Amino acid sequence: MTTPIQNTPSTEPLPEVSDWWTTAISRIRPGEILLRGYPVEQLIGQASFPDMIWLMVRGDLPTRSQSQLLEAALVSSVDHGPQAPSIAASRMAATCGLGLNNVMATGVSLLGDTHGGAGQQCMQLLDDLIQQVGDDGDLDEAAEDIVATHRAQRRHIPGFGHRFHPHDPRRNPLLDLVADASTSGAVPGRALAAGTALERALAKGRSRPVPMNIDGATAIVYSELGFAPELGRGLFVLSRSVGILAHGWEEKSGGTRIKGPIPRRLLPSYNGPAPRDLQPEGTA
Amino acid sequence: MTTPIQNTPSTEPLPEVSDWWTTAISRIRPGEILLRGYPVEQLIGQASFPDMIWLMVRGDLPTRSQSQLLEAALVSSVDHGPQAPSIAASRMAATCGLGLNNVMATGVSLLGDTHGGAGQQCMQLLDDLIQQVGDDGDLDEAAEDIVATHRAQRRHIPGFGHRFHPHDPRRNPLLDLVADASTSGAVPGRALAAGTALERALAKGRSRPVPMNIDGATAIVYSELGFAPELGRGLFVLSRSVGILAHGWEEKSGGTRIKGPIPRRLLPSYNGPAPRDLQPEGTA
Amino acid sequence: MTTPIQNTPSTEPLPEVSDWWTTAISRIRPGEILLRGYPVEQLIGQASFPDMIWLMVRGDLPTRSQSQLLEAALVSSVDHGPQAPSIAASRMAATCGLGLNNVMATGVSLLGDTHGGAGQQCMQLLDDLIQQVGDDGDLDEAAEDIVATHRAQRRHIPGFGHRFHPHDPRRNPLLDLVADASTSGAVPGRALAAGTALERALAKGRSRPVPMNIDGATAIVYSELGFAPELGRGLFVLSRSVGILAHGWEEKSGGTRIKGPIPRRLLPSYNGPAPRDLQPEGTA
Amino acid sequence: MTTPIQNTPSTEPLPEVSDWWTTAISRIRPGEILLRGYPVEQLIGQASFPDMIWLMVRGDLPTRSQSQLLEAALVSSVDHGPQAPSIAASRMAATCGLGLNNVMATGVSLLGDTHGGAGQQCMQLLDDLIQQVGDDGDLDEAAEDIVATHRAQRRHIPGFGHRFHPHDPRRNPLLDLVADASTSGAVPGRALAAGTALERALAKGRSRPVPMNIDGATAIVYSELGFAPELGRGLFVLSRSVGILAHGWEEKSGGTRIKGPIPRRLLPSYNGPAPRDLQPEGTA
Repeated sequence: MTTPIQNTPSTEPLPEVSDWWTTAISRIRPGEILLRGYPVEQLIGQASFPDMIWLMVRGDLPTRSQSQLLEAALVSSVDHGPQAPSIAASRMAATCGLGLNNVMATGVSLLGDTHGGAGQQCMQLLDDLIQQVGDDGDLDEAAEDIVATHRAQRRHIPGFGHRFHPHDPRRNPLLDLVADASTSGAVPGRALAAGTALERALAKGRSRPVPMNIDGATAIVYSELGFAPELGRGLFVLSRSVGILAHGWEEKSGGTRIKGPIPRRLLPSYNGPAPRDLQPEGTA
Repeated sequence: MTTPIQNTPSTEPLPEVSDWWTTAISRIRPGEILLRGYPVEQLIGQASFPDMIWLMVRGDLPTRSQSQLLEAALVSSVDHGPQAPSIAASRMAATCGLGLNNVMATGVSLLGDTHGGAGQQCMQLLDDLIQQVGDDGDLDEAAEDIVATHRAQRRHIPGFGHRFHPHDPRRNPLLDLVADASTSGAVPGRALAAGTALERALAKGRSRPVPMNIDGATAIVYSELGFAPELGRGLFVLSRSVGILAHGWEEKSGGTRIKGPIPRRLLPSYNGPAPRDLQPEGTA
Repeated sequence: MTTPIQNTPSTEPLPEVSDWWTTAISRIRPGEILLRGYPVEQLIGQASFPDMIWLMVRGDLPTRSQSQLLEAALVSSVDHGPQAPSIAASRMAATCGLGLNNVMATGVSLLGDTHGGAGQQCMQLLDDLIQQVGDDGDLDEAAEDIVATHRAQRRHIPGFGHRFHPHDPRRNPLLDLVADASTSGAVPGRALAAGTALERALAKGRSRPVPMNIDGATAIVYSELGFAPELGRGLFVLSRSVGILAHGWEEKSGGTRIKGPIPRRLLPSYNGPAPRDLQPEGTA
Repeated sequence: MTTPIQNTPSTEPLPEVSDWWTTAISRIRPGEILLRGYPVEQLIGQASFPDMIWLMVRGDLPTRSQSQLLEAALVSSVDHGPQAPSIAASRMAATCGLGLNNVMATGVSLLGDTHGGAGQQCMQLLDDLIQQVGDDGDLDEAAEDIVATHRAQRRHIPGFGHRFHPHDPRRNPLLDLVADASTSGAVPGRALAAGTALERALAKGRSRPVPMNIDGATAIVYSELGFAPELGRGLFVLSRSVGILAHGWEEKSGGTRIKGPIPRRLLPSYNGPAPRDLQPEGTA
């Protein structure tokens, strides 16, 4: 009945299957795990977790200053409560009978262009601003131009403004750490200058300034450390995964089943068509 | 045409909407972010990233010894190369035009009962063994019973055996750290005793012992630190997310589009029905 | 600096890479797409979408009666509104800047053991009941035993009871279609008998009967059609994906950004520790 | 120890929680399920599954011609074998201990901008072309301009070209159905004209024409039916979910555990740094 058909005639040359999956990250052989060249057994107990993140993503180990600055940024953005859709979605997932891996994947998947991508976009903007101005140009002037352009196009400047916090409590400690690292020569300090120039430009002529938010503050840290903008989102995912795990686990431990977004006796509003009957000819 | 219908008559009492989303993890108010009671601005620069993971999941800060042991386990399992389906899936996702958040969610979602759940199952087994034996019972005897029962049922003992490593290079450094922490009184040492008893029982009478793998070694660490078994999977997800990010980013940087599992000129084999024609009456 | 290392010595025999990805579902060659043996160009315009679902999952085309019954079940469960966590999560995802594929994956991922798996569990229960009683045993008696056992263990019977509908409006039309198909000999009718026996057993001695819900009604359909229980969940996913798409698209079209589960000025309740200061020695 | 804190003072006015989740798609009340105004019990057994997809997404039922054309497109793209990363990823997920919902979500998530989004982009291009030319302009001339511009920018024209099929077997049957529907007045036929104009423009002066692929052919169908471009991706997801389910189930039934992308004895190639020792001062 069934005719097995071999699609790869044996006369074909050896396919380069291993090369299809080439990587510079790890070499796994029997009894051996090299990560970026280092034997894993040397890293365990020696490298910090932020060291490992840096090593895996960048290819080499960071200095102690770089690692500490990365660690501070990772610590800063672990959670912003169940009002964040990523946290709420993972809590709901936890009540639907999923393993914690799928609960966490649900929350992580929501950190998209809008929710988790603002940091990435801010890094890009800082980068553009720095490139445009060069090493000794006037950042304030260029920042004001950017703000004016965005305002004219009614576009939001990523990394600034918060629907919630008039002043984000995470801004100052992060920026202070960057300033210290800049003073000691551990980071260039140019992204810090660009970010605060944007903040000043946004505040100009307003009674209520537009505050730098966590996306802006971590964008400065990650830019100072030389991460590509897209990795800003990746690092945010690593950080927020901690809050997602904590909330998913709290919800799972609570034992609620199939939790909707609002209490059960509340119903969503309906603004669709009034009840109507199916016309037999309608579907045929 | 459209009749808006209000589902919640205003005569109903105020729904306890806020209570529907109660949490003990974070309190977010304008200008304030408390994480397990601590102001975030105090944690930034002070708490390590493993401290934060512990704080968020457990509710209080760890001791330095606890934090270092957790950190070693998180470092140990970041990656096992593109042969792992979680890594391969995230690399393929990276070539399909997804943001890094969705690339990472794809890999994380594969860390299920079989792929990422062995550590959780091993923690449960260690727990059962310790409960069964009590504080001063004979772990070796009980471990031999468990091994015999599993063998009779042809069941695999989670945390032991590896299709690849005759000896997992991550075992010794992790177990050495647990042994040190046990000697200093930082952890009880009972899960270490239970795990090595299982290892001895598995080796008995075999020329080629069944090695403890990374799931077994990290299960011992997480059990010693008092994490619930299910959290073993959550911590593994946090750790492996680092490798998933590194691999997803490497693949994305490479620029391949829509990468399949094998090189393009290789075709999957086919063992289905031979070509056949649709019979008009077949589909009615 | 970098030393490329070839892991597959060319002296190894040709790996059977194509066989690693063997499938009986499709054969794709240049200019040819066979699905279960049928050329795709014959199926387009001839097979209905439910025909294709059946063909792809089962391997052969259904009869017209089978296809119509499958179609009715697929139609019945497309949506249950934003109170369902799968729908709410996908709507929130749609406001976070994800593509519709990731919006849909977010909703689909929530149809787990508890949310989407009840139909699968009910199919298993119907199967067990039918196996236990045999072709001519008394289903009512066996159903009463099952109900008694579940009640004694305080376990829920999957497929029955609804927090919302005293009578699920989808039950009768689906069961009527099964009854008709049974009368005409198109399906055996045994799962229908088993399901209604469970319903009677649950109602016995209660003033307010426990109604069969959509999971129960579709479980009867899918069991009558000979699907494996696990596929019950898969078919439900296909059906609910329609509602997930409709809701994700409606939300995306609305333009809200980063939508949380409750209106912005409402805050989640907090029952964690009171504000406390970090003790410097606490984190060591 | 714990101080519960109420975040919503009772003096606040009733929050419009139900309005936060307003929808025009479904109204769910006790004993009632209205879908776009129709009682679900009238739809079951009357509406086809493609009817329901159209109703849920568009708000009204399609004509029979519209429904049949939609059905043909849904049938056409269910599968393209395990070489597609979406299928391969879901097959790997099926070996990692996930429920079928998470297996399916894994595959669906990969249908991103590059893998599943080409149809959406082609619909946008057809739309732009039609808008630009107007009702009676010369599509061929405009199509040649577009092709020239894309070639100058070394950009790919979405919906055309296939690494595999010199002629996609799904093109002709789909385009024939559109041509018939256009002749009968069921669809305008303008997207068909635009798509074939692009095909001609691409073929001009080439010995080997660039064939229209499935993304192009279904883009013509969905555009003729009046779907927004973004929904093209959503409809593709519904269609490909069928193949994802079939492949995930086949793999799950096979019983392989933790399946990597290539056979186990093949190792990925490594082009990273040579083995190196950790310098104690390196991690500080």
